[in-house]
Amino acid sequence: MAGLKIGFFGFGYVASTFACGLERIKAGEIDLTGIPLENKIPQHKVEDIEVVCGFDVDKRKTGKTLSSAIQMYPELKDMKAFEKIKIFKGINLNSTEGMPFEGEGLDHDKSLEECAKEITEKIIELNLDCTITITATEPIVDVDSVDELEKIIKDNQKDKITASMFYAYCAFSAARKRDRGIVHINGIPSKVANSPVFVELAEASSSVLIGDDISSGQSRMLSDLMEHYKEINRKILSAVGANWGGNMDFYRLQDEKRNESKKVTKTGCAQDILGYDLPSDIKPHGYLAPLGDKKAVFMHFPMKLFNGAEDEIFICGRINDSPAAAGMLVDMVRLGAVAVSQGEKGVIAPINSFYCKWFGKQHSKILAYQELMGWLGKK
Amino acid sequence: MAGLKIGFFGFGYVASTFACGLERIKAGEIDLTGIPLENKIPQHKVEDIEVVCGFDVDKRKTGKTLSSAIQMYPELKDMKAFEKIKIFKGINLNSTEGMPFEGEGLDHDKSLEECAKEITEKIIELNLDCTITITATEPIVDVDSVDELEKIIKDNQKDKITASMFYAYCAFSAARKRDRGIVHINGIPSKVANSPVFVELAEASSSVLIGDDISSGQSRMLSDLMEHYKEINRKILSAVGANWGGNMDFYRLQDEKRNESKKVTKTGCAQDILGYDLPSDIKPHGYLAPLGDKKAVFMHFPMKLFNGAEDEIFICGRINDSPAAAGMLVDMVRLGAVAVSQGEKGVIAPINSFYCKWFGKQHSKILAYQELMGWLGKK
Amino acid sequence: MAGLKIGFFGFGYVASTFACGLERIKAGEIDLTGIPLENKIPQHKVEDIEVVCGFDVDKRKTGKTLSSAIQMYPELKDMKAFEKIKIFKGINLNSTEGMPFEGEGLDHDKSLEECAKEITEKIIELNLDCTITITATEPIVDVDSVDELEKIIKDNQKDKITASMFYAYCAFSAARKRDRGIVHINGIPSKVANSPVFVELAEASSSVLIGDDISSGQSRMLSDLMEHYKEINRKILSAVGANWGGNMDFYRLQDEKRNESKKVTKTGCAQDILGYDLPSDIKPHGYLAPLGDKKAVFMHFPMKLFNGAEDEIFICGRINDSPAAAGMLVDMVRLGAVAVSQGEKGVIAPINSFYCKWFGKQHSKILAYQELMGWLGKK
Amino acid sequence: MAGLKIGFFGFGYVASTFACGLERIKAGEIDLTGIPLENKIPQHKVEDIEVVCGFDVDKRKTGKTLSSAIQMYPELKDMKAFEKIKIFKGINLNSTEGMPFEGEGLDHDKSLEECAKEITEKIIELNLDCTITITATEPIVDVDSVDELEKIIKDNQKDKITASMFYAYCAFSAARKRDRGIVHINGIPSKVANSPVFVELAEASSSVLIGDDISSGQSRMLSDLMEHYKEINRKILSAVGANWGGNMDFYRLQDEKRNESKKVTKTGCAQDILGYDLPSDIKPHGYLAPLGDKKAVFMHFPMKLFNGAEDEIFICGRINDSPAAAGMLVDMVRLGAVAVSQGEKGVIAPINSFYCKWFGKQHSKILAYQELMGWLGKK
Repeated sequence: MAGLKIGFFGFGYVASTFACGLERIKAGEIDLTGIPLENKIPQHKVEDIEVVCGFDVDKRKTGKTLSSAIQMYPELKDMKAFEKIKIFKGINLNSTEGMPFEGEGLDHDKSLEECAKEITEKIIELNLDCTITITATEPIVDVDSVDELEKIIKDNQKDKITASMFYAYCAFSAARKRDRGIVHINGIPSKVANSPVFVELAEASSSVLIGDDISSGQSRMLSDLMEHYKEINRKILSAVGANWGGNMDFYRLQDEKRNESKKVTKTGCAQDILGYDLPSDIKPHGYLAPLGDKKAVFMHFPMKLFNGAEDEIFICGRINDSPAAAGMLVDMVRLGAVAVSQGEKGVIAPINSFYCKWFGKQHSKILAYQELMGWLGKK
Repeated sequence: MAGLKIGFFGFGYVASTFACGLERIKAGEIDLTGIPLENKIPQHKVEDIEVVCGFDVDKRKTGKTLSSAIQMYPELKDMKAFEKIKIFKGINLNSTEGMPFEGEGLDHDKSLEECAKEITEKIIELNLDCTITITATEPIVDVDSVDELEKIIKDNQKDKITASMFYAYCAFSAARKRDRGIVHINGIPSKVANSPVFVELAEASSSVLIGDDISSGQSRMLSDLMEHYKEINRKILSAVGANWGGNMDFYRLQDEKRNESKKVTKTGCAQDILGYDLPSDIKPHGYLAPLGDKKAVFMHFPMKLFNGAEDEIFICGRINDSPAAAGMLVDMVRLGAVAVSQGEKGVIAPINSFYCKWFGKQHSKILAYQELMGWLGKK
Repeated sequence: MAGLKIGFFGFGYVASTFACGLERIKAGEIDLTGIPLENKIPQHKVEDIEVVCGFDVDKRKTGKTLSSAIQMYPELKDMKAFEKIKIFKGINLNSTEGMPFEGEGLDHDKSLEECAKEITEKIIELNLDCTITITATEPIVDVDSVDELEKIIKDNQKDKITASMFYAYCAFSAARKRDRGIVHINGIPSKVANSPVFVELAEASSSVLIGDDISSGQSRMLSDLMEHYKEINRKILSAVGANWGGNMDFYRLQDEKRNESKKVTKTGCAQDILGYDLPSDIKPHGYLAPLGDKKAVFMHFPMKLFNGAEDEIFICGRINDSPAAAGMLVDMVRLGAVAVSQGEKGVIAPINSFYCKWFGKQHSKILAYQELMGWLGKK
Repeated sequence: MAGLKIGFFGFGYVASTFACGLERIKAGEIDLTGIPLENKIPQHKVEDIEVVCGFDVDKRKTGKTLSSAIQMYPELKDMKAFEKIKIFKGINLNSTEGMPFEGEGLDHDKSLEECAKEITEKIIELNLDCTITITATEPIVDVDSVDELEKIIKDNQKDKITASMFYAYCAFSAARKRDRGIVHINGIPSKVANSPVFVELAEASSSVLIGDDISSGQSRMLSDLMEHYKEINRKILSAVGANWGGNMDFYRLQDEKRNESKKVTKTGCAQDILGYDLPSDIKPHGYLAPLGDKKAVFMHFPMKLFNGAEDEIFICGRINDSPAAAGMLVDMVRLGAVAVSQGEKGVIAPINSFYCKWFGKQHSKILAYQELMGWLGKK
C-alpha cells in the first residue's frame, strides 16, 4: 500500500511526538505500544505514515525544519528524518495573544482569502492525504452556514473565525479543487466536526472529518468508569475530575474563556452515560509549569449502593497528554484514509465515538470500541 | 408472578444485608440503587423475593430468628419481618476453627449422610426456589467425580469435603428428589460452579448453578480498567490490587491457605484480559477490625504509552463488601429462576460472566454486560 | 474554677457542633478526642465552658433557640440544654447576599452606631468571657486607624466595614465599658487579628485577640508536611492543595472575591516554611452540595532529592471542616481566658501560631506546638 | 579541613548512588538537594567526603572497580573517579542465598578469624574515617556479650553471626588497633547500634556507632504525620503503611523471616508516638521488579475528631529508596566525624534519632530535628 502523507496545523508537542514516535518505530527502537489498533488495520501499516509538513505561528519554528521544534522539547530525540519536515507559516488570528512566545502568521500581512489560497495550494502541492489541527485550545466560535463562512473569509472578518475553522476550510477546499478527498482531523475542542457547516464541506469534497478533541486521558477513563458504575446501578453522588499541567494547553487555559470549552466537553460525558444530573467539577484546574506535559490528575466519586451503603473512590496519577493523543492520531489518520478509499464521507460515527470527545450524546469508550470493531469488520 | 423463596447457607453480613435491604425496599424506605437490573427483569420483580430461612454454625444465631443476627450489626435496621426468618443449624466441617465465636453444626453429632438428609428435607419442606452459599472463604478442596463425592458422604470423610460443596450437594439432591429444579448460587471462592462434578449434579436435577465468588468490588473494577487500557494498547508494567478490611472474611483470610484462593481468582483476571504476563500483587492484604465491612482499597498501575512515555495511576477508596454482594444477589436469584423456568440447566455463561469471578478465561464486565443483555433479549 | 461564658457571632455548623459536642461531653456520651489540649489546661476544664448565646442573620434562626439551628443539621443531636441558648439578630452588612436563605440583621433598620450599642450591651448583660466570630468567609476590607473605624461607624458607612470587623469592635467596646477584658476570636480569614487597629483596641481594653481563620484541616497538614520536607532538604517542585465541599463556606466561595482571601492565606504558608518560591494552586476549588461539611481534599507534591532523583506524593481524603474547627475552639477560648487572667493582652503569639492560619511569617504547626507548650509552662 | 575517607560494606545501589551523587556535586553538575544539612556543618563540607573502597560478595563486582557496579544501574552516570574506587571481597555468611546472582565472600575459603583480620587490616591500611554497612536486609541475630561475640568468631560459628555484626566488629577492631576512633554506620535493620555489645565495642575504641536502618522514606513521613495528629488529639483508628518495590531489598524481603525485622521497626514507631495501641499493617508488601528502586507507597488512616466525626486520609506515591538513604548518609558520616573529633563515643542520641529508625522509644523526626540542631549548636 502506498504511504499516507500527513500535514499538521500546529506543530507543537503532539505533532513533534507523533513524528518522533513514528521515526523511532521505523528505526526499530520502540514497539507499537500506545497505538490502539497497532498493525491490525490491513490497509495501512503504521510504518506507511509519513509526516510531510507542518504549519505554525511560533516565530521560533516557522520557516525552519522539525528539528527546530524538537530542540524545544529535551525529552524528544532528534533524528535525521526531521530535516525533511518543513514548518510553514500558518494562520494566527490572535491565537498567540498572551502566549509566552512571539507569533507570526500569514494573516499578519495578508487577507484571509490570500491566506486560504496559499494554504490550500500547499496542501495540493504536497499531495497531503490527511491534515490535523492540533493547536492550543481556542474560544468557541460558531458559524451558521457555508455561505456565511465564505463571506467571512471574503470580507476578511478576522474576529469571526478561529484558526481551527480556517484550517478545516482550507483542507476541504484543497480536496474539492484537486477532486480527491482528504482526511481532516480537528484535534482540539472547537466546533468543527460538531458543526453542520464543516460536515457539509467535508461531504461536498468526498472527504472525511474527524473530531473534535482527542479523547485520550482522564475524560476517556471517566467515561468507562461511569459505564462501569451504571451497569451495576450505583448512584454517583458527585464527581470531581481535576487536572493540573504545565504544557502550552494549560498555559492557555489560564484564560477562563478557553477553559469553558473544555468544561462543556467533559461534564456532559458523565451525565450522558449515567442518565441523571450529577453535581460535578470536571475540567482543567491550573497551570503549574514544573509538571510539563505530564499532568497531575485527581478524580473523586462518592456513590450509593444497596441498602443505603456508600462507597467512595479517589483516583490520582500522572498522565502524559501529548504522547497519548499522538498514539490515537496514528489510528485516526489510517482509519480516515480507509473510509475515504471506501467512498465514505463526512463524519464516520464509529471512528469519532472511540477516538474523540465531543459528538452528540456520548457513551462509554468500551462500547464505542465494539462499534469500531464492527465497522472494521473485525467482529 | 409468584414469589421466589430463598434460603441462605451462612447467615452473616451479606445475607442479613440482603434481607434487610429487601424489607426496606418493600416498605418504600429506599429505592433500587445497587441492584444492577432493578425491575427490568419482566418475570420477577425485586419485591417478589422472599428470604425464608438460613443455615449457620455460629452458636449465637442457630435456632433463633434473623433478629438475633441483625443485632450483631448495629448499622442494620431490625424490622418486623425478621421474626419470620428462622436460622437452622448448618454444616460446620471445621469451618469455624480459629474464628472468634463458638461453632455448632449438625455434623458435631451426626454423620454426613444424616446431615445431608436433614438439610435436603428442609429445602423440600420449605419449597425453596434458590439456595445461596455465602460463608467465609474456605481452603480449596477438589473432587473428581460424582461417585467419589457420594462415597465421601457415605463414608463420612469430613476432611475431604468443604461446607460449600456439601451445601451444593444438598441443593441438587433436593431438586432431584422433588423433581423440580433449583437455583444454587455459590457466592464464595471455592470450586463448585467451576467443578464438572457439581455442574453434572445441577444438570441432572434440571437446576441452575451460579458461581463461584461474587464479583462486586475491586476485582470488578480492575477487570474493566484492564479492558479500558487494553483497548488503547497500553502496556501495564505492574499491578497492585490491595485491600484491608475488618469483616469475618478478612478475619479468616489471616489464615494464609484461605487467602490463596482469593489470590488465584484475582490475578488471573488481569492477565486474561490483557493477554500478557503481568508482575502483580492482587489479593486481600490484611485484617484491620476498625475498618469493618467497608474495606480500604489501593490499586497502582504504571504503564507505557506511545513513544516510550509512562503514565501512572493510583486508586484508593473505601468499598463496602456485603451490600455490594447483596445487590448482585438480588439479580442472580431472579435470573437463575428465569433460566430454570425456561428449561435451561447447569451453568448459564451470560449470568456467570457478569456476576461472578472465576470461570474459565475471564473478560471484562462491561463486555459481559452486553452478553447478558443479549441473553435477556434486551438487545 | 468558674465557668467560661461564650457567645457566637454566626451560629452555623461550627457553633452548633461546638455546643453539641460540649453537651455530649458533659453528658459522658463522648470523650475529649479532637480537643488538642484535652483537660491539660489546669485553669479551665473543658466542662467549664458554657455556650450562652449566638448572633445570626439567617431568618430561620434569629429570635429562636439553638434547637432551631440544630434541626437544620440532621447529623447533630438535639439536647435539652439547647433550649437555653438564644440566637439574637446579628449584623448583616450584605453578608447574606447570594446565600440560599433570607437574611435579617439589626442593620436592616438601624444605624451602625445603634447596632453597636445593642450588641455591646448584650455582651455586658450576659457577662460573656469570650466571643467568637465564625460566619462564612467575607471579602477582605481594611481600615487604617481606630479613628477611621470609629468614623465609619458613626457615619454609618456600611460598605466600608465587614461583619467580622464590626463584631470585634463590639467585643472590645464591651470589655472597655465594663472594665474587664474579653477573649475575642476571629475564626474566619478576614483581617482582624492581623490588623494593627484591632490589636490596638484589644490592648486598650485589656483583652486578648485570637485569629484570623482557624487552622484545622488541609492547610495545617500542609504546613507540617512542608516542614518535614524542608528538614530533609527536599526541593518541592510544585504543589496542589485542592478541596471541594458542600457547606455554606464553600457555597459562598463560589463568589471569586471571597475565595481570594482563602488563597492568600494558604499559599503563603508553604512558601514561608520552605523559604523559596513554589508554583502552586492551593485553595478551595468548588462547591459540591452532596459532600456536605466533609470536604474532599487532594494534594500533590513532586520533589527532587539526592542525585537528581524525583519523588512524588499524592494525598487524598475526606475531612470534616466544622468539627475540626470546633475542637480547636474548645482550646482557644480556655487559653485566651488564661491569658486575660494573667494580665496578658493583644495577640498572644504562641496561641495564634498553633491554632490560626494567617499571622506574619508562618512556621509549621509542630514547631508552634513546642512554643505553645513553653508558654503553658509544660516544658 | 582534611577529607573524610569512607568505605562501604555492601556496594549496591545506595553506595553507588552516594558515590555518584558526590562526584556530580564536586563536578558542579547538581546542587545539594536531598542532603539535609547541606554545607551547614562547619567542620566538614560535603565535598570533603571521599569514597575510598567497597566490600561486596556479588561475583560481578568483587575485585573490580565501582564502574563495574555502576554499569548495572543504567540510570547512574559513570565518571572517571569511579576507576579509583576498588571493590574488595566482603563476608557472605549465606547472605546471598536465594539472591539472583552468584555470591563469593572471603568466608568461602577462610575462617571468620582470618576474614576479620583481613578486613580489619584493610580498614587500617586505607585509613578509613567511616565505614557504612548497607547490604540487603538480614534475619535478626542477637549476641549477649563481647566475650560471646569473640568466641563465635574464634570458633568459626558462621551460623551465629550476620554480616552486619561481623563488619561492625571489624570496624571497631581496626579503631582499637590503630588507636584512632572510627565512625561506623549500620544502615540496615539488624541489631547493631541497638545491641549493648556493639555499643561497648564502639566506646572501648573511642568510636561512634550510628544506626540501625536509615529513616528516609515512608516510615519517616509516618512518624511526622503521627506527631501531627497527636498534637491535635485525633484518635487514629487503624493504619496501613504498605509499599512495593523492585530493588534487591524487596527481592530479599520475599523471604518472610527477613520481612519480620522491617515490620517490627515500623509498627512500633506509630504506637510510640501516639501512645496507644493501633491496629496496623505497616511493612513492605511485595516485590514487583518493574518498580525498580522507586517504590510505590500507600498509607491509610481513618481517625476520630471532635463530636464523634471521622476523617480519612489516603496517601500514595512513588518514593526512591536509595537516593533518599544516600542523601542522609552524606550527613551521617560528617556528623559522626564531628562527634569523634569532639571525643564523644558510642551512640550519639541526637544523630541517631533524626537519621535512623530503630532506637528505643521513638519520637517524631520534626522533634528529633530540634534536638539535632541543639547538639550542633545551631539553636
